[in-house]
Amino acid sequence: MITILENLAGVITPQSNAAAAVLDIRTGVSIVIEDEIIKEIGYPETIRADYPDALFMDGQGYWAMPGFVDPHTHPVFFKTREDEFEMRVLGKSYEEIAAAGGGIRNSVRVFRQASFDQLVELTYHRIRIFPEYGTTAIEAKSGYGLSLEDELKSLRVLKKVASLLPITIVPTFLGAHEVPDEYQSHRAKYIDILINEMIPAVAEEKLAVFCDVFCEKNVFTTAESERILLAAKDHGMIPKLHADELHYTGGAELAARVGAISADHLLKISDEGVRAMKEAGVIPVLLPGTAFFLGKPAYAPARKMLEAGLPVALATDFNPGSSMTQNMQLILTISAIHMKMNLSEVIYGATLNSARAIARETELGSLEPGKKADVILVDIPNYKYLPYHYGINHVKKVLRHGVLVHEAEI
Amino acid sequence: MITILENLAGVITPQSNAAAAVLDIRTGVSIVIEDEIIKEIGYPETIRADYPDALFMDGQGYWAMPGFVDPHTHPVFFKTREDEFEMRVLGKSYEEIAAAGGGIRNSVRVFRQASFDQLVELTYHRIRIFPEYGTTAIEAKSGYGLSLEDELKSLRVLKKVASLLPITIVPTFLGAHEVPDEYQSHRAKYIDILINEMIPAVAEEKLAVFCDVFCEKNVFTTAESERILLAAKDHGMIPKLHADELHYTGGAELAARVGAISADHLLKISDEGVRAMKEAGVIPVLLPGTAFFLGKPAYAPARKMLEAGLPVALATDFNPGSSMTQNMQLILTISAIHMKMNLSEVIYGATLNSARAIARETELGSLEPGKKADVILVDIPNYKYLPYHYGINHVKKVLRHGVLVHEAEI
Repeated sequence: MITILENLAGVITPQSNAAAAVLDIRTGVSIVIEDEIIKEIGYPETIRADYPDALFMDGQGYWAMPGFVDPHTHPVFFKTREDEFEMRVLGKSYEEIAAAGGGIRNSVRVFRQASFDQLVELTYHRIRIFPEYGTTAIEAKSGYGLSLEDELKSLRVLKKVASLLPITIVPTFLGAHEVPDEYQSHRAKYIDILINEMIPAVAEEKLAVFCDVFCEKNVFTTAESERILLAAKDHGMIPKLHADELHYTGGAELAARVGAISADHLLKISDEGVRAMKEAGVIPVLLPGTAFFLGKPAYAPARKMLEAGLPVALATDFNPGSSMTQNMQLILTISAIHMKMNLSEVIYGATLNSARAIARETELGSLEPGKKADVILVDIPNYKYLPYHYGINHVKKVLRHGVLVHEAEI
Repeated sequence: MITILENLAGVITPQSNAAAAVLDIRTGVSIVIEDEIIKEIGYPETIRADYPDALFMDGQGYWAMPGFVDPHTHPVFFKTREDEFEMRVLGKSYEEIAAAGGGIRNSVRVFRQASFDQLVELTYHRIRIFPEYGTTAIEAKSGYGLSLEDELKSLRVLKKVASLLPITIVPTFLGAHEVPDEYQSHRAKYIDILINEMIPAVAEEKLAVFCDVFCEKNVFTTAESERILLAAKDHGMIPKLHADELHYTGGAELAARVGAISADHLLKISDEGVRAMKEAGVIPVLLPGTAFFLGKPAYAPARKMLEAGLPVALATDFNPGSSMTQNMQLILTISAIHMKMNLSEVIYGATLNSARAIARETELGSLEPGKKADVILVDIPNYKYLPYHYGINHVKKVLRHGVLVHEAEI
């Protein structure tokens, strides 16, 4: 079955083989889709003749871009944390917030009380919002369960929701998000459980592609993170890391050493970390929505990484405590303003480079023949306008694997 | 004609007589609308019996809030400035940006070449976006014409667009936005033209309710601003000021002295300015989207004003150079994070207090009997969620003067 997406302003796309973040911009072209794959991009006159039996889909004069790929989200949680947001804004201390029911460990406590069905419903409605803002693929982490049973529950929720929604969900096991209350005074025991019970069980049930660790002062040390990630690797999961976010701990270097696909956050990355990541081919995933949401003045040094030739990826960090948004378009704006990225770099960051961060660059992240037809139609006059006209949803239609899955009101 | 908006989660509204920013939150109530006015808010059982012939409108379980009032926008311009946005992000100097066609004075140059019809079309499509994000009334300024003819053109565009769209547009004459190129070396002459030609012509044609001046170092001095505003007052316009934004110039004190309805920006306001505004009843209008968009670390000292008892109002500052957004919901988030306002203060700021800043508090800004039925239905579990879940449009339906004027897709 051939569908032709025509009457487009044109196509704006990163290019898989580009040396720098240069966008391929072609006006007046149409996109030929065969089943769920982009077959070719070309001029209507030629294409119409080549596919006389095709179905035509009206692009309504909008530009076509690849759907956003969001490579770092935490969507499986029970309660939102708006009270904590206000308390933090008003300058309450971490202790006051924790006492009032805030923080990751409180999220864990309530998560464990939630049923599978409750979590499926909540997660479904949260993930449903991503395509409305142009995201067609997300990486999604567990990490609010922190017990064998509850981490499995979290990953099974993701699997269930992935079967219910037209969006690609790539699951990550994040049992090492925090040391849970009951193991605070014997953390080695929790790491044993992670390595000897949780990782094997997750692998056995094939519930996660990646294994992530929150490598941070007072959370997991680099030595602990290394053990956990190597164990996960032995079980066929690809390592990822929350690295060098609040303090420099050598997380980026560790990511390189264990062959991680990405190292995420990186506000405190060292020059040596940049070099090591470049050499090992680790993708930096930056999450500037988090600094924005937490009201922090400092952002990750994106320019340093870009200048070292690293393909910087961007993500929302969607989670209830430190970045409550699914909107990648706003992340582009924040990345430009606060990380001094140019406006083609931010688009590469949210598409092709973020596809690289989840090992899906051969099928997602650009509009090129052979890739999945994950296409968004955006109501903008040019690509720079997308992050410039901020806080506005410019996405009018979303195709995922060639199927129209979202349409904004007229 | 009676319409009843029922099946609401309830009503969240500021209260006109509240001493502090305390929201009135009532679950399970319905809103009775007679023609375009709120007649009463009460419980369905009683109301249904009282109005047997009413038309029923389904609130679909959403919360009702007053439509946002945006008291500071500059929507009448010709060209957007996305190239300039990128240049600024990458650290280009003001001179480089101006040379490449950026800045207010370049906006003026292109504005003068635009026809009335072109400007109506562009302005129409920009203002149309406000209700999609929940704004039912805006103040809108001229200020990119800076000649008698072009300022009249700007205000006539607003008048025309107001007749074409279901949104309240309150016009402000801002001929004193900048000294245009041709008077840079004899600025006194431009001020004479403002006072003796432009203000009388605007008043004669009744094109503006307010007169605003950009009182700032290297733009208009406080002495010049005072002369202009007093002349406008003589012609029946109410003064407003861009005050103490980039430098302290005594703008807030001047606003108090001339009886301005509002003083806007106020990043550099003095303690004396706060006192003077409080005494004179001048409303502070804060525009944190501008600092955000320009990537500046400093925001207006909202807490100082709130603690002095000033009713802080919030606005987008929608304009092509320093804040390209119509989204008041995002402004609430930025205000909370960067100005430490609590989450009821930001809602007061975007509704009742912003209505005060445009002298419309008797008819707009809250859901109370006697006021216009400007009602938005929002898909949130509680009011704190609105700024917390950021970058997302929570508005599902918009009624303006009792008429359904916008509905989001399901």
